[in-house]
Amino acid sequence: MTTSPDIPPPDLRERILTAAEEMLRRYGPAKTSVVDVARHLNMSHGNIYRVFASKEALRAAVVDRWLARAHAPLTAIVTGPGTPPEKLIAWFTCLADQKLAKVAGDPELFATYQALLHQVPEVIDRHLAWLAEQVRAMLAEGRDAGLFRFQDLDAAAQAVLDATLPFRHPDMIVATNDGPEHRKLRAVLALVIAGLTSGALA
Amino acid sequence: MTTSPDIPPPDLRERILTAAEEMLRRYGPAKTSVVDVARHLNMSHGNIYRVFASKEALRAAVVDRWLARAHAPLTAIVTGPGTPPEKLIAWFTCLADQKLAKVAGDPELFATYQALLHQVPEVIDRHLAWLAEQVRAMLAEGRDAGLFRFQDLDAAAQAVLDATLPFRHPDMIVATNDGPEHRKLRAVLALVIAGLTSGALA
Repeated sequence: MTTSPDIPPPDLRERILTAAEEMLRRYGPAKTSVVDVARHLNMSHGNIYRVFASKEALRAAVVDRWLARAHAPLTAIVTGPGTPPEKLIAWFTCLADQKLAKVAGDPELFATYQALLHQVPEVIDRHLAWLAEQVRAMLAEGRDAGLFRFQDLDAAAQAVLDATLPFRHPDMIVATNDGPEHRKLRAVLALVIAGLTSGALA
Repeated sequence: MTTSPDIPPPDLRERILTAAEEMLRRYGPAKTSVVDVARHLNMSHGNIYRVFASKEALRAAVVDRWLARAHAPLTAIVTGPGTPPEKLIAWFTCLADQKLAKVAGDPELFATYQALLHQVPEVIDRHLAWLAEQVRAMLAEGRDAGLFRFQDLDAAAQAVLDATLPFRHPDMIVATNDGPEHRKLRAVLALVIAGLTSGALA
């Protein structure tokens, strides 16, 4: 891949993604073409195709970046200080706040991303796999510290993710949300953590 | 209310509901009128309006009866033998099976009822209140037997209902279902029951 020497490819990639995101937000997926994005950036669409092989690849990258923005604070919780039960509570509360901000805070942008996500299901799968990996890390840490007991790490993580689904699924989170303290989510997590602690899945 | 002496009102009510259900199933809500139901029963639509004040009242009664059909086996579990933990597992498993049969077993009828339900939200509210009442009864029995400890019955029941939502919500149950053994639901219930037992919400 060759680009002009004054624009290194990583920066070009970010500039294209930012422009595409802005146009998708403003005009919606149906009305945003690669040519539009190129025009917005005062460059030829050939320039974009040198970075993203297709319109679909560009869209997938936009959605990927949108989802990935949520990852940094979640990763910070998993790798940061605190006991595994504290981490689980902080992590699911953070995730609920992020989802609420997306769904309720900017409904138009969220609708755009929902439409895009249906076109790139592999991005959702990757996001869900990433979330599951984070939960497994917290449960494994709890197990290694002698706090949690369970037979199968994958099954235990799945149960924790299932029990908390109403507090992170975009179709439900507005209905289940009961304010910034997340009392309902915390009650579910209290039951789940007690179950992990008492070896209900051991 | 007067009806002809050879058709006692309760029977007439059931006959109208059965005919309306059959026609809704066949033609959908948009194409089913009170006149159609009356014609199907070879009676005047005045006869129907003597039992149901409006088309909306008839629809609400059809949906109510559809939901209420699921109630008998659930009530039998709550009032039957077994420990409260056993009852919770049997009850939520029964509910999941019922929902799956509705959603996956007869998708056309289910779509019809989903459309109807959006027109009569008070029927959904009544159904959800009924489910919550049943869960409260099982939790209260467990508390009175010294098996469960929690501070607030309503909040505890809400947490149990929230944690199990993916296994009974019509939009999610097909995705979460993992076969007749309901391993994933049982794992969530194992955590929840251990939490109630260990006093996580006390």
